[in-house]
Amino acid sequence: MKLETSFAIALPAWCVELAAELPEHLPEPIDRMRLAIELSRRNVEAGSGGPFGAVVARIDDGLLLGIGVNRVEPGHCSSAHAEIVALSLAQARLASWNLGEAGAVELASSCEPCAMCLGAIPWSGLRRVLCGASKSDAEQAGFDEGARDPAWADALARRGIELHTAIERKAARSVLLDYRDRGARIYNP
Amino acid sequence: MKLETSFAIALPAWCVELAAELPEHLPEPIDRMRLAIELSRRNVEAGSGGPFGAVVARIDDGLLLGIGVNRVEPGHCSSAHAEIVALSLAQARLASWNLGEAGAVELASSCEPCAMCLGAIPWSGLRRVLCGASKSDAEQAGFDEGARDPAWADALARRGIELHTAIERKAARSVLLDYRDRGARIYNP
Repeated sequence: MKLETSFAIALPAWCVELAAELPEHLPEPIDRMRLAIELSRRNVEAGSGGPFGAVVARIDDGLLLGIGVNRVEPGHCSSAHAEIVALSLAQARLASWNLGEAGAVELASSCEPCAMCLGAIPWSGLRRVLCGASKSDAEQAGFDEGARDPAWADALARRGIELHTAIERKAARSVLLDYRDRGARIYNP
Repeated sequence: MKLETSFAIALPAWCVELAAELPEHLPEPIDRMRLAIELSRRNVEAGSGGPFGAVVARIDDGLLLGIGVNRVEPGHCSSAHAEIVALSLAQARLASWNLGEAGAVELASSCEPCAMCLGAIPWSGLRRVLCGASKSDAEQAGFDEGARDPAWADALARRGIELHTAIERKAARSVLLDYRDRGARIYNP
C-alpha cells in the first residue's frame, strides 16, 4: 500500500453554504463569537464533527478571513480541530502562513483551546483570542484539553497575544452538554 | 473576496519521488529516525520548507504509514510542521483519525516537538515518540519551541506514550545548524 503524499480538510456542505451567505465583515467581536458558537451547534446537528466552531477575523473592521468546525472524525485527521481549520483556511485565503499580513487578527473559538491549538496560536500570527466555553465545561462534556502549560494565559500575554475568556459562555457550554446528552462519540484514543 | 472552504498540504516533488522508492517496512527504529533526519536535510537542500522531518511507522514490524517535512512557508500554513504532516498523511492512509487502528504506532521526529506538535501527539493515537535534536539545539538554530508544559515527558508517560530523546542527535542537530548558517528564514511571526 502506497504512502499518501497530500491531505485535504474541507468544511462540510452546510458550512460551505453558510460561508457563501456570510457578510464580508462582522464588526462586533461578540458577533464573531456568536458565529463560532452557531458553527459548533450546527456541526452537532448535522453530525459533521465535534461540537466546536471557530472564526478568524481582522480586529479593527471585522473582515472575515476564515471559519472552521471540528472535522476530526469525517476528515480522518486528529489535528482537524475547529481552531486549526479556521486558522488554516484564513492562511489559505491570504496565501501566507502569517495572519499578521492582514493586520491585527483575532480568533474567536467556541471553547478554550486544547494543548495543541494553544500551541498553534503563536505560530499563526494572531494578536487576540476570544474563548466561549471553559476547560471545565469541555471536561464536563467528556472532552480532554490535554497537557497545557499551566501558565498558558501568561505565555500568550508574553507573546503580545490578548486573551478574553467566557464570552457567551452559557450558549457555548450548552452546545457541549447537548453533544454529550446525545451520546455522541468522544474521540480521544 | 470569498472565504476558503478547504485546504490541502502536499509533500514537495522530491519527497513524493522518495516516498515511491521507500521500502514498505523499516524494521529498525534507528532507521526510521535516520529517514526523518534525511527528510529534514533534503527539505533544506531543496528549499521546500523548514529543517524538520518526521516518520510514522508501526512499532513491531516497521510498516511505514506516513512521512512528513515542514511545509509552513510553501504550504501557507503555520500548522504544517513535519510531525503534523506525517501524522495527517498516516491518518489519511488509514482513513482514520486514530493511528491505534494500525497497532502500536511510533513517530520519529528529527527534532523534539514544539508545543503544538506535543499537544497533537495524544490525539493521534501514537504509542511511542522518538526525537533527534533537542529543544536547545532548535533554539540554538533560532527556532522557538513555544510554551510547552514543563512536565511534558511525564504528561506523555501518564497517557501511556513512550518517549526516547537524543536518537542520532548529532546528525539531526547538524541539519538545524546548517539551515541557520545558510541564513534561511526563521518564520516565527
